[in-house]
This record gives sequence, structure tokens and C-alpha cells, in this order.
Amino acid sequence: MITVYGYSNSGNCHKLRLLLTQLGREFNWVEVDSTGGQTRTAEYLAKNPNGKVPMIEADDGRIMTESNAILCWLAEGTAFWAGDAWQRAQVLSWMFFEQYSHEPFVAVARFIRGWTPLGSPRRADLPKLQERGHQALAVMEQHLKQHPWFSGEAYGIADIALFAYTDVADEGGFDLAPYPAIRDWLQRVHKTPGFVAMPPPPVEAASRIALPD
Amino acid sequence: MITVYGYSNSGNCHKLRLLLTQLGREFNWVEVDSTGGQTRTAEYLAKNPNGKVPMIEADDGRIMTESNAILCWLAEGTAFWAGDAWQRAQVLSWMFFEQYSHEPFVAVARFIRGWTPLGSPRRADLPKLQERGHQALAVMEQHLKQHPWFSGEAYGIADIALFAYTDVADEGGFDLAPYPAIRDWLQRVHKTPGFVAMPPPPVEAASRIALPD
Repeated sequence: MITVYGYSNSGNCHKLRLLLTQLGREFNWVEVDSTGGQTRTAEYLAKNPNGKVPMIEADDGRIMTESNAILCWLAEGTAFWAGDAWQRAQVLSWMFFEQYSHEPFVAVARFIRGWTPLGSPRRADLPKLQERGHQALAVMEQHLKQHPWFSGEAYGIADIALFAYTDVADEGGFDLAPYPAIRDWLQRVHKTPGFVAMPPPPVEAASRIALPD
Repeated sequence: MITVYGYSNSGNCHKLRLLLTQLGREFNWVEVDSTGGQTRTAEYLAKNPNGKVPMIEADDGRIMTESNAILCWLAEGTAFWAGDAWQRAQVLSWMFFEQYSHEPFVAVARFIRGWTPLGSPRRADLPKLQERGHQALAVMEQHLKQHPWFSGEAYGIADIALFAYTDVADEGGFDLAPYPAIRDWLQRVHKTPGFVAMPPPPVEAASRIALPD
């Protein structure tokens, strides 16, 4: 059985909980508070020198990092990553889009709003992060006006990758009202078999998130 | 025959020229100066709403974006992306690392140094970008002390992805002297069959790059 090292309020980590649950696979979950320095211990860095969550460990001790690569490994041979080579690469294309053009803005804005002190100088970055995040959301909206999913004919790992932080984009200060196709898609994902939602943020983060920027 | 839309001095674009050449595949190359706004025209955005290079177009007009996804599609069924599902996902892991933890720092520092005016306010970002870039280089160095390649047993697409901007990291102000394993690996890549180097930067960029930060 694999062990997931993750922080439950991280979208990148929640991707794995969601897919593993939907695959019906048992797994161990070791909670690692990446916001509190637990990915920077010597013990953790020995397993993942890049010091990030999530990470998985197989029974034989082998390690894999990078949420979207782990999704690919878990989904191999399943309907969550289906189609011919072109279609499977299109799924990867959306997953690289997520990590390069979406997560660094949508997720980081959420992190700054909820997990940094109210006086943090990083809050000055929010307008630029939100501008870039909206650019990514606009690209998603345009796709979803013509296609029901990001993973080809059916729901799959590109949807899971993009869903994770889009579903909590409001916590980063993003109003999804201008994106009706995204809102419909989020609802479709919520209704997929075995869906599991990310837990709400801890109290202190939630109280910060409730404040205006 | 596929058409590549790319800027020859972009590492992300050069990845495709390198793999296509090493695969012995013919291709058309349409030069798109992403530094001069050519990815923001209505015509370009109609093909790639995310407005980035590289992009490939098949004879039937189908489009694929994201350099590393395109590498995967091109390498499917070849020795450049070999091994079992675990190994192939480890290759993806390094490619996601490249796009999340390496390119936004190593490549962006190079872009700012060479392709923005000397008085650009973005130059104030260089120290932070270089700090984060060195963190990525340290992770690579640690891997390369124990393994000859990033793609498993042999050279492959994870090496191509990480090579592109590491080989020109000096142009971003990165001194590779502290990374002997990276320097040896760069030399091994240079010696792979069919290797082709990125062209030197345009004169104006080269003259800026030659200046201290």
C-alpha cells in the first residue's frame, strides 16, 4: 500500500486523495504541515530534496514527487488517463498548463491570503497574482465552452489537476461569476463517483480568508 | 509533417528542435518572436489562447501546446521515454520539476537580463530569481551525483527538458562552478547523437547579457 505525505489543505495534495479515493485504492496518509516547516526537516529532505508535498512512498521505499506525475502513475491503465498517444499528451498539456500558468497564481494567492500574517509583505503581490490567475481562468473558460472535460471524452486526471485549486479559487480572492462554464464544470466534478472534497481551511486561515485583501 | 511555432532563443522551443533533430524527423519551423508580441496577435491566440510558444500544428490542423507535453507525444514509443509505468512517471516528475521549480527562475532571470531594457523594474527581481534558481540547480546536482541521466537508464526527454535552460544558465547570471555533476552532464548531452545547440542570442540581448546585474 502506498503512503502519501501531504498537507490536507494543499490542492496539490488533495489531487492524490481524490484520485486514490475514486480509484478505490487504499492508502496511508501522513499529514505533513508544509506551511509549518515540516517539509524542510533533514528527514523529509532526505526523501525529497526539493522539500515539497505531496510525495508518495511505495512499500519498498521508492519515492515519487510532483503531484501531476503521481496522478499519471496512479491513472496508468485506467479510464482516468485514456485515449491514444495524442489524446494522452493533450491531458499532459493541460497538466503542465496547470503547474505553470494556473497554480503559481491561483494557489499562491490563496496561500498568501490564508496562510501568511495579515501584515506580510507578500500581500503586495496579490493584485499581480490575481491578474495572472484570471488569465488562466479565461483560458479554461474558453475550453469549457466547447468541451465538457479537460481529459478528453470523459473526466480524468487533467480535470483533477485543474479542479483542485479552481474549486477553492474564491479563497484566493477570485470571483468565478464571470466564468459560467467553469462553474458548471466544477459542479460536474463534484458529482463524479467517489468524489471527496478538500477539508475546510484551519480556523486561523479561514478567518484571514474572510477578510478583504 | 508537423509545424513548430517557436522562438529559436527560447529554451522551451529549442527542446522541440533538439528532440525532432535527434529523432531524425523532418519538420517545418515558423519563427514566432514571443519577445516582440507575436504570440499576442488575434491569429496566434485563435490557435493557442494561452499565447505562448512553442506550439505544434499537425497537417490536419490539430494543435498541441506546452513544450514538455509535446516532448512526450514526440517521444512516445521511442527510447527517449522508455521504461515501465513507474519509470515513465519519474521522467514526468522531472519535467514537472523543470516547469515549476527551474524554468520560472533560471529561464526568467535569463529573459530579464537579455530581453528587457537595462532600466526595467523587473531587474529588481533578479536576486530572488537567482536564489530560487540555485535551489533548483542544487536539487539537480544531488541527483546527478548518483545518476548519469534524469530519464532513467539513458538520455531522454527529461534530460532535454532540463538541459534547455541549464545549458544557458550563465546568461541568467548563474555560475555553474559549484555544480561539477551538472557541468559533466551538460557535456554528456552535448555529445549525444544528433545534438544541436541553441543559436546565440541576438546582438542586442547578447550585449545586455554581457553586463553585470
